[in-house]
This record gives sequence, structure tokens and C-alpha cells, in this order.
Amino acid sequence: MKYRLLSRLQLPDDLKKLTLKQEEELCAEIRRKIIETVAKNGGHLSSNLGAVELTVALHRVFESPKDKIVFDVGHQSYAHKLLTGRFGSFHTLRKYGGISGFTRPSESEHDACVSGHSSNSISVALGMAEAMRLSGDSHHAVAVIGDGALTGGLAFEGLNNAGHSGSNIIVVLNYNEMSISKNIGGIATYLSELRTQYSYKKLKSGAKKVLGAIPVVGTGIKSLISASKDGLKENLLHSTMFEDFGFEFIGPVDGHNLEKLEAAFRSAKEMNCPVLVQVNTVKGKGYQPAEDMPGEYHGVTGFDIETGEKPPVSASFSDRFGVELARLAAVDERIVAITAAMKYGVGLNHFTGALRDRLYDVGIAEEHAVSFAAGLAAMGKIPVFSVYSSFLQRSYDELIHDISIPELHAVIAICNAGIVGEDGETHQGLFDIPFLTTIPNVTIYSPSTFEELKICLNRAIYKDRELVCVRFPKGSEQPSGIPAADGYSFTDRLSDTLIVSYGRTSRAAYEAAEEVGCSFLKLTRVYPLQEEAVELIKKHPRVFVFEECSRAGSIGEKIRLYAPWADCTAIDGYVPGMSVRQALELYGLTAEKIAEKVRSAP
Amino acid sequence: MKYRLLSRLQLPDDLKKLTLKQEEELCAEIRRKIIETVAKNGGHLSSNLGAVELTVALHRVFESPKDKIVFDVGHQSYAHKLLTGRFGSFHTLRKYGGISGFTRPSESEHDACVSGHSSNSISVALGMAEAMRLSGDSHHAVAVIGDGALTGGLAFEGLNNAGHSGSNIIVVLNYNEMSISKNIGGIATYLSELRTQYSYKKLKSGAKKVLGAIPVVGTGIKSLISASKDGLKENLLHSTMFEDFGFEFIGPVDGHNLEKLEAAFRSAKEMNCPVLVQVNTVKGKGYQPAEDMPGEYHGVTGFDIETGEKPPVSASFSDRFGVELARLAAVDERIVAITAAMKYGVGLNHFTGALRDRLYDVGIAEEHAVSFAAGLAAMGKIPVFSVYSSFLQRSYDELIHDISIPELHAVIAICNAGIVGEDGETHQGLFDIPFLTTIPNVTIYSPSTFEELKICLNRAIYKDRELVCVRFPKGSEQPSGIPAADGYSFTDRLSDTLIVSYGRTSRAAYEAAEEVGCSFLKLTRVYPLQEEAVELIKKHPRVFVFEECSRAGSIGEKIRLYAPWADCTAIDGYVPGMSVRQALELYGLTAEKIAEKVRSAP
Repeated sequence: MKYRLLSRLQLPDDLKKLTLKQEEELCAEIRRKIIETVAKNGGHLSSNLGAVELTVALHRVFESPKDKIVFDVGHQSYAHKLLTGRFGSFHTLRKYGGISGFTRPSESEHDACVSGHSSNSISVALGMAEAMRLSGDSHHAVAVIGDGALTGGLAFEGLNNAGHSGSNIIVVLNYNEMSISKNIGGIATYLSELRTQYSYKKLKSGAKKVLGAIPVVGTGIKSLISASKDGLKENLLHSTMFEDFGFEFIGPVDGHNLEKLEAAFRSAKEMNCPVLVQVNTVKGKGYQPAEDMPGEYHGVTGFDIETGEKPPVSASFSDRFGVELARLAAVDERIVAITAAMKYGVGLNHFTGALRDRLYDVGIAEEHAVSFAAGLAAMGKIPVFSVYSSFLQRSYDELIHDISIPELHAVIAICNAGIVGEDGETHQGLFDIPFLTTIPNVTIYSPSTFEELKICLNRAIYKDRELVCVRFPKGSEQPSGIPAADGYSFTDRLSDTLIVSYGRTSRAAYEAAEEVGCSFLKLTRVYPLQEEAVELIKKHPRVFVFEECSRAGSIGEKIRLYAPWADCTAIDGYVPGMSVRQALELYGLTAEKIAEKVRSAP
Repeated sequence: MKYRLLSRLQLPDDLKKLTLKQEEELCAEIRRKIIETVAKNGGHLSSNLGAVELTVALHRVFESPKDKIVFDVGHQSYAHKLLTGRFGSFHTLRKYGGISGFTRPSESEHDACVSGHSSNSISVALGMAEAMRLSGDSHHAVAVIGDGALTGGLAFEGLNNAGHSGSNIIVVLNYNEMSISKNIGGIATYLSELRTQYSYKKLKSGAKKVLGAIPVVGTGIKSLISASKDGLKENLLHSTMFEDFGFEFIGPVDGHNLEKLEAAFRSAKEMNCPVLVQVNTVKGKGYQPAEDMPGEYHGVTGFDIETGEKPPVSASFSDRFGVELARLAAVDERIVAITAAMKYGVGLNHFTGALRDRLYDVGIAEEHAVSFAAGLAAMGKIPVFSVYSSFLQRSYDELIHDISIPELHAVIAICNAGIVGEDGETHQGLFDIPFLTTIPNVTIYSPSTFEELKICLNRAIYKDRELVCVRFPKGSEQPSGIPAADGYSFTDRLSDTLIVSYGRTSRAAYEAAEEVGCSFLKLTRVYPLQEEAVELIKKHPRVFVFEECSRAGSIGEKIRLYAPWADCTAIDGYVPGMSVRQALELYGLTAEKIAEKVRSAP
């Protein structure tokens, strides 16, 4: 039987009855199940394979859902899902109505919170731990966070508050020297040093003993120690930043040794105070191609289990953006590119050779990325920050305070704008237009083809001023035959009816307009609305707007300020994980649905 | 002559010609000028008095504007302003058209960036330093940041990136054990320990010498040191977190000793690498009342120089909010209050006695505050995060990701919503309605009196679900005579004309409606718009909306989706520092202006 244990055990309760050998067998089954499922459905592979033993050990030591396990980002929660009643439905991973690729409390009481965005786990877990403390509940809240997520300022804010809280919070630092791109910055270097101190604990107690035995007095170490109550002694004997923050520190622990993990977590649990446990894991553990190239198998759309081969990827907007920006940067030294730990995802891997010096990977630090861009812009550089739409939400204040108020010129390349598909609620790019348009003097482009992307990027860099955003969808272009434009493109069919759209949806909307026989307006610069485009819209007694955008603050609402009769199709509420195609269908954004809507409207 | 040096020197150039004695005289003049001006105009006192010597020393060592001095928050930049050509106009501090209370590049080339929000200085300075490095410019960028601002995650993201950057960035940590409220958390404790090590540098070299002299071998310290290349040696010999981040560390330096400051800054400058200089200063230095009670004189509206007495403050919305929340919390253990380092400013000083256990001051960490609230809410608590409108901009992503998507119930009390007056662009509360209304299922109240505030707060806590915001202005109520309501209040004058308003502006709008003789609609729940209110609006062929809100995303725009004929008065662009009264006048929000507009409209 392929899943002898997973299919028969009552999990997580039965976990505690297993022998070490059975546990190891269970871990192997979990790995197989993850590999099998992700190969078919796509999803996060390397991070999940790295966290199998860690998760089994956590569920043996802690009692979920009374103890709360908070997974940062959630891209390492598959083992947790398999251990908490979702083995039977795991084949629906990332499918419409199926198991989410991240934790979702709506899915299971064992999913302590919504995850998807990075670096919030310590804060959320601290809230839970403090709630328990206030209620006299002695259970624990455990945050599981990778070293990549630790570069986010939010995680630091959480650490700063948790260490001295006196509540039962445990932070499990899942250290694998790798966030989505290679980890960069002071904290990475620091943690890397910590990792090499595999015998840290031993060293520490060794040093204590040695110091006690030192015979030197007077100007010797001992007197220095007694000179300041804790000062130097602390400095001599402890080393981790986490202890500076008030945590007890355990580790580093071998993250694939079940016994050691369990022992460490039990110690942490018994301490009943803030504890940080550093666990060293190997990303992709147990699947050779992923171990060899963890970055390549971080998030995948599927692969061949035998060979590790992945389906060919067609050129994406992000990639084409990167190629074009690199081309421009090669001849214009003012151009500087910034990514928040997603060099590959946002197309900036094309900054190679001499351009590497003008590519900044700042870690998972979207706030810093924007303030840093402001400093560059103030000195005459042209910073281009390339980022996923939903992660740019983190930068809202900095965009206003550091870019817009001082009227600095910065370009934001917004990847994964609109519907993103299987990653669901937390990853949809549906808020960028609503929140960016609240910022005075912002300009937003939404190219629908690679050609338009180039045109818009060039305009954004060389023609426009202040804050300029170029947003484009996940995946590849679907050329529509509509002429490329940097403003708008109007297809006049001398009809009373006008369909308006932009970005990826333009193609379906254009097809629908063709089918229905009505006029069509494609916006490329979506904000501010262009006067001529508004005049065109106002001339049509029947106007229909279609867009992949959250309704409140959408372009449709802005159009309705001029043409109140416009009928707007936008997204209401949050969009769960499903294919892009399914979502477009569900929200009425396919050619058929659009045509149907326009035909059946009064 | 009162300002013998300030009035005659060509600053900052002449600074370098001064003797130490003259420098000290200059510092005294600067202090006098600051005290004199703030006593009259209001502003930040304690922080500015603490940074006088620090600023003089910086301008002696560095060459502004070629070297860039980036003041975090900017509430310590008055000495800098007096040293860079603004002595003559300093009496216009915080007046309309006058000198801003924060740095503004539009005011002087010596103001390197816009400041006002906390914790961005390291990121901005790093951008500048990297731009210089890329351009082969060997000047320096200096970030001046207080220990309070260091609790913000953005500062950590900056540190993480700056330490290993290899650029000429210097971070001056202005350590005064005090942010706006008392500093809290791991970093505060850590820095406090560091401060006590006044002889840190000496101690360090002492320890080095001692270690070198230790005769023990074998299991002794020396062998431990050589056992790991840098490991233990590092741990034994360095201590500061900043060195862990890759900075060279200098300090702590006496922040009121000009010679020592200058020596420290010169060393830092010569290192040509990332350096952190810790400077210990005394908030309020040189003005006894401010030294004694730095928190009380952090931001003031004015005071009597002789006695230190401040004008009586009338009850504010924030204060009344705090009183009511404390009353509710006393009988409901689920209520938990959160502030981001502004206990007094947001009214939470009323959480005393037994309630102290349910008051969380998280430091300047608005992101964490919201994610922390999410953890509390998930466990059945009712978190109430009280925060200034403009600082809540930092939490946009967390409000969506951690509160709204999981449908958790949390209350945000938004202080200083609308026009805030003298603090200007960076502090106006004009974006909360625009950005909050992009979040699905949010509810927003805008009470116009203390009575309504109570009603709304009770509704928000006990009747509404998910994310609920109660926003109120700075300062006191101006009772209007309009009946209190938790939804809307309609004054029917059987007119074709309807004036709509909410919050503080309601009173002026109501007076105008009385004068013009038209009907009046006051919204208390401003979002989502209530059906009945919309019906009322639609019945009026002439509708005028008046609000203290940025135009894009305003309530007026939402009303126009139903009543496109509505004429909306809102704020376009950023509002500089001036009195609230002046701003309301300028933006057409006084009773006279409103009446005039309605009368003269077609």
C-alpha cells in the first residue's frame, strides 16, 4: 500500500503513538505525496520538502489546534495539511474548491491563520500567545518562519515585541540559507555565521566553564565581567541577536533528525517563555532535482517526477519586462533595478554582467525597496522597482511619503497584476489600481501585449514624471490584433454600444465587441483617464467596462464619474485559488461572458 | 545682541571657522531660538533641544548639501534649519507659507528628503549613498535616527541592506531612551544595556588585550578562539547588533560634547564604509521643564518660557475615545488596546490599573500592530488599535491580509483624521477613507461629536463585524446641534438643494445649510453608504458634498456613483502646514465658503 500510514492513521492524534521508525516511514510517505501532488497540480515544492520532519515533530510535541502553529507565508504547510485531516482531499491542492496552497482557517481548525504574505507569523503568533496569557490558557503559539522571511521588517517588529512579552511564544527559525532568491543582507550573513556554529550550545557552556577557571585577576576578564552587572558577561557569553531581543535560544538543530527536533521543541515548550529554536533544513530534501536546484523548484507549475523536467514556459510579461529594462539600462547608467527577493519572478535575472552592479535585491522588504528608490531618485537615478501587485500593498505609505510628496520620479513595474490563478486570495493582484489611484499625480499603464509593455516602459522612464506604474499580468501575452498604443486605442463600429477594457482582459473584450458588433476602447494608460478617451466614452449611450480589478476604486468607477450610465464588471470580494481561466469565467471576463452580458443588457 | 553669531555668520560654511567656545555660544543661541520660537508657534521641543550639538558637529564634519544629512521623522531638524540659511525666516515655523516643522527639499537644498513618518531614514540615505557610489562620488549620506524610530521594521530593513553595502553610509543613532511614549521591546532593552556600557570601546580593546595575555591553552579560551575562525572570537570581542549587520560601530559618544562628537563623526567619515555611531543625548537638553518631562514637551502647541506652563487643552476626541474604551474594557475582558508608541496621543493613557495588562505599546510598528491584532482577534479578543490616520497608511497590506481576508473582527480608532494643521503634508489624515474603502467589507464611522464617538465605538465593538474603523479629527468637538446618530441624520427643509457632510466639517456644512435654507444630511457611518441615505440624496436635484478627504476615493466620489450630479468639494494634492482654520478656509470647508459655493452654483 502506497500510503500505509497516511491513509490509516487518525492524525494528528495517532502521531504520538508512533515509533521512530514509523515516524520516518510517515515522513517518507508525506514526501511522496507532496512530490506526486505538486508534480501534477503545481505548487511549492522545495520549501515543503524541507519542512517535513520539522512539522511532524511540531505536531508530536504540540497539541493543535489548542496550541497554535502559525506558518509564515504558508508555502511550507503541506506536511501540516497532510497531518491534519487533509490527506484524502490533498489531490485537490490548488484546484477550485480544493485545498489551498497556503493555510486557510476556513479549511481547517488546524490552520491558525491566513498565510501567503511574508514575515507576519511572529506578530500573529504573539497576538495568539498574549490572548492565551490574558485568558489564563497555558497553551503555546508557535511561529514557523524561514530565514528569507526574517529579512522583512514586520518580522523584526514581531521579534522586538515578542522577546520580552513573557508569553508562551516559540519561534521556529527554519534556516535553509535560501529565500525565493538567494538571501541577501546583514541578517543573512549573520545567520549563515550562526549556522556554521553547529556546536553553538556546547561552545557556550564550554566558554562559561573556561571563564570560571581563568586565574587572571585585576585587569583580567573576571574583573571586567564584574565591572558591569550583565554587560560584558552577556557580550562574552551569548552571541545570538535573538537573545538580545529577549528570547531563549535553542539550536541550531538538525532539521531532518526527528529525535533532535522533538527534544528541542519539548525543551522550548517546557520553558514557558519566548524561545527561538533555530532549525537547519535542506530545501527540497528527499527529491534530488529540488535539493540540487532548490530555487528552480520553489514554485512550479508541474514536473515529471522521474526526470525532474518541467513543462516549457512561454515568454512572460515579467521576463519581457526584464529584457527590455536590461536593454535600456545597458545604455543609460541612471537606470537602477530593485527587487524584493524575487529576481527571477520579476524578470530582473536579465541584469547580468556589468548591469549586476545596478541590480539591488533588498530581501523581502517592499517598504525599504520604495524608500531606497526615493534616495536613488533624489540623486538623479531612475529607480525601477519590480514587484508583484499584491506585495506592493506593503509599500503604500512609502509610495506616498517618500516618492509622491517630494515629487520624485520612480517607476514601479507591477507583475502579477489582475487574476493570478491557483495561489488564491492572498496573491491576486486586484488592489493595485484601487490603492495607487488614491495617490496624487500617479500615472498607471496597463499594457496588454509585449509590444505595449515596451512602449509603456519607455514612456514611464523617459516621458512621465513623479510616480509611474506599469502593471502587467502573470504569464504570457495573448495578442489581440488591436493596434498597440501608449494611451488608448479605439475601434469604431459606429455603434451606440461601447465596450471598454484594458490589460489582459482587452483581448476577450475585443473579441466580444467584434462578435456583438459594437465599438471597442482599449485603455493603455488607465490612470489618469485621458480626456479624449473620456470624450469617446461619453458619446456612447451604452457603455460596458470589463476589468480584472477589485470593484471599489476600479477604473470602471472612475469612468462612471464621467459616464454614470456605464455598466461595470469588476471583482467583488476575494478570489480563491483556481485557474486564471476559471476565475475569468466565474467573474464574467471571458469573451463569451462579455458578449452575453452586453447582448442581454437593457 | 541676542543672536550675535546666528545673525552674522554665513552658515553652514562659517561653522568650520569657529573656536570651541564660539561653537558652544552658537549652540546656546540655537537653543534660545528654538525655545523662543516653539513657545510661540508650537512644534517639537524636546527632540530638537537634544540634537543641537549633534547637528553642529555634523555640519562641521560633513559638507551639506554635497554630503546628505537625512533626518528621521525630522522632528530634530530645527538646529539644522537654523544652520542652513533659515535663521531669518525661522519665526514663520509651522505657519502657512513658512518654515516646515519637518525637512522639505522644496524649502532648502540642505533638506535631503521629505521627513515626517518614522524609520525611513536609513533606507533613503542608503539610496543616496549607493547613487553616489555608482556615480563615483565619494561624499557621504548620513541618517540621523532616534532609538524610538529604530523599533520600526522599515529601519531594520534599511540596516539589513546598508551594513554590507560597501557604500559611504553613516547611521547616527541618536539615543535618548525615549521615543514619543516610553520605548518598549527587545531593541529598547538592548540599547539601554548598550548605553550603560559608556566605556564600550575601551572595554573592547581591554578585553582584546586581556585575551591575548591569557596563558591558558588546551581547553582554554585561546584554543576555543582558534577552533572556529571567527565564531567565538567574534562572540567574545564584539557585541553590538549593528556589527552583526555589517556596520563598523563607534560609541556611545556623549551627545552634548562637541569635541567628542566631531571626533567620532570624523572617524566615521574616514572609514569610507557603513558606520553606525551611537550618540547618547538628553531630550529637552538646556530647558529644564523639558529635561524633566521630555514626553510632555515632545510636541507642544506653545508654552510660557519662564514657567514652562502650557495653555490648557480642551478635551479632544482622542482623549474621549480613550476614556470610553477604558470604560468598556473595565467590564469586558475581551477588549485589548494597542498603540504604536503614542499612548498619550491616541488617548490610551486611560488604560491604567488593572487595564494596563490589556494595553500594548508595540513601538513604532504599525504593521506589527495590525498583525498582532489579528492574532488576538483569532483567539476571541476584541483588539482596538488606536493610531493616527497618516501612520495607518503603513498597515494597508496587513489590514487586507491579516484582518479582512480571514474575516476577523478588529476595530481601528483613527485619530487625526482629516486636516491636522501645522504639521503639514506628511501628517494630514486625508487618505484613510480612500485606502480603507478599497478593502472589501470594511465599515467606517466618522463621528462629529463626542456623543457620536461613543455611539460609534460601541457599535464598532459590539454590533459590527470584520474590519471596523472609527475616525475622528484632531482636537475638540464643535457641537452642531444636529441630533447624534449612528447612521445618518437628515434635516429636511423641503428644499431641492441638499448639503452632505460628515465628521468635523458637518458643523460648518450644517450652518451653511441653515443660512442658505437648504436640507442637510450628515453621515455618521460614511462607508458603506446606507441605502436610505442614498435614497435621500437621489431625491435632491442639487447635491453638494463637503469633506476633509483627498478627492480620489473620497465619499463624494462614492456618492456620485449614485447621484452623478453631486458637486463634491474635497482636497486635491497635498496640504502644507498651516492652521486647521486656514486650511479649511483654503479648501472651501468653512460655513461661509460652503454657503457661498452652494449659493453661487448653477
